[in-house]
Amino acid sequence: MRLRIDLSYDGGGFHGWAAQPGLRTVQGELEAALATVLRLSSVEPPTSLEPSTPAEPSTSVEPSTSVELVETTARPLTVCAGRTDTGVHARGQVVHLDVAEDAVVAAAGRYDGDPVDALTRRLNGILPTDLRVRRVAAAPDGFDARFSPLWRRYAYRLCDGVPDPLTRGHVLAWPRRLDVDAMGQASAGLIGLHDFAAFCKQREGATTVRTLLELGWAREGDLITGTVRADAFCHHMVRSLVGALLAVGEGRRPVSWPSEVLGAGVRDAAVTVVPPHGLTLEEVCYPDDADLAARSEQARAKRVVT
Amino acid sequence: MRLRIDLSYDGGGFHGWAAQPGLRTVQGELEAALATVLRLSSVEPPTSLEPSTPAEPSTSVEPSTSVELVETTARPLTVCAGRTDTGVHARGQVVHLDVAEDAVVAAAGRYDGDPVDALTRRLNGILPTDLRVRRVAAAPDGFDARFSPLWRRYAYRLCDGVPDPLTRGHVLAWPRRLDVDAMGQASAGLIGLHDFAAFCKQREGATTVRTLLELGWAREGDLITGTVRADAFCHHMVRSLVGALLAVGEGRRPVSWPSEVLGAGVRDAAVTVVPPHGLTLEEVCYPDDADLAARSEQARAKRVVT
Repeated sequence: MRLRIDLSYDGGGFHGWAAQPGLRTVQGELEAALATVLRLSSVEPPTSLEPSTPAEPSTSVEPSTSVELVETTARPLTVCAGRTDTGVHARGQVVHLDVAEDAVVAAAGRYDGDPVDALTRRLNGILPTDLRVRRVAAAPDGFDARFSPLWRRYAYRLCDGVPDPLTRGHVLAWPRRLDVDAMGQASAGLIGLHDFAAFCKQREGATTVRTLLELGWAREGDLITGTVRADAFCHHMVRSLVGALLAVGEGRRPVSWPSEVLGAGVRDAAVTVVPPHGLTLEEVCYPDDADLAARSEQARAKRVVT
Repeated sequence: MRLRIDLSYDGGGFHGWAAQPGLRTVQGELEAALATVLRLSSVEPPTSLEPSTPAEPSTSVEPSTSVELVETTARPLTVCAGRTDTGVHARGQVVHLDVAEDAVVAAAGRYDGDPVDALTRRLNGILPTDLRVRRVAAAPDGFDARFSPLWRRYAYRLCDGVPDPLTRGHVLAWPRRLDVDAMGQASAGLIGLHDFAAFCKQREGATTVRTLLELGWAREGDLITGTVRADAFCHHMVRSLVGALLAVGEGRRPVSWPSEVLGAGVRDAAVTVVPPHGLTLEEVCYPDDADLAARSEQARAKRVVT
């Protein structure tokens, strides 16, 4: 069976999502907890210091292959909706995991209700407090955490006054006043289907064409929140977009500049990648159950500018 | 001249407000930064690890004496509105400090505006990020951070669902569902002028009579916020009140219980002092400038039940 796991984490203590030997990562911690709760590795339990999962788990593995790997290696292999970088937070990360139904029933023990429900408490009982499971559920047919989403929504938070120490872990302190209206105008020119190569860390063989569905800014006192929503994101895309827009907000660049950078289609050294700790993956939206499989097929197909 | 300094801090990294030798405290860090900025201790600068201020600074010192101490010892002596315990946060702490006007002018350096304004930036430039100065201002005549307030307002925050890792430093995770309506009913019976000895860590010679102006609870999803406002608070008073009300919220005690404990007038072992990290000093309210001195006189007078 496939499980859907909804997660929140404070990215400040993690070297990003992807498991890496010797580093504390979200995937490493989660998979170690899953292995314990589902008793997948009684011989050699993974430790949080040395996650023993592969450095780069094959996130494009097909469901059937994935089940086979779980059975042969006795390691949980999780696939997430958004592979967050070091320091990036999440309140709405979604993960899937293929697991034998027997293991779930055994893990629930004497729990009266749905055995899947019991996993939430079991996992939170052993996970560190900077990583919380919001919910575990049986995933519907065709669900794929990475390929099924209709969109991902991120928030980038800044404070351009005296920062609140209580939120300093997820709100970037910005030393100069920002013109949020100008940032909003500049943002409007970036919305739509584009090749975002100018704002991405290019990866061999990967497309940088994405549909930016929403990009807007709101101020509440000194707290400024940028909302960015797209079908999917390339590496460093949100933080590069924010960096370009902050140059506009400070008045260092004209409102037209981010659109010009986008149009040039090549990575621009003048675009700063802002620090990760202001960024939070807030929500991942999936289609209705009936449309899951079709959506996954569509997302797997290489996107091209039409 | 007397300065008013408004502060925010994340109490998680401090051993409370009051300076103590060898411990990192809010007062120790603040006074060290003030000494540096105001050049009060060029011979032997205090370090953040070993604050060299007295362990228990005399917070009841009269303004005139305070000025004298600053001049003779060359140490800033700060007096705060709420001496927060280890782990308790503040967004609205208020402090006063008597200092020679020359030192403020010298500290401002070539700053064009009001020299007092320059101190905010200077201080924040050297203070750690878990302690921020919101504002420095010249205090009006008769202003006393400790004795002038009309009231102090604290918030106590809990989450009775899956906690948000991003706010775990200032929101207490509570493992069972709470009945906020029952807590509100129980709170209503505590409002007014009472001897709060039952909810206080008694201090020799100090009154425990206080006027509780507000005590209420609000739920937003899983986040529950208690608001507590009083003319002043005794030691552990807010955290004991919250502890008693949580027993009601869980259904372990009837709604009438906190009032009965109050009426008994003696510290009740059944009342739990809840953890400090859910507590934040949010606001201190001072009267209009003309009423400051009169208010201080009134607050100094020992309170009695009328």
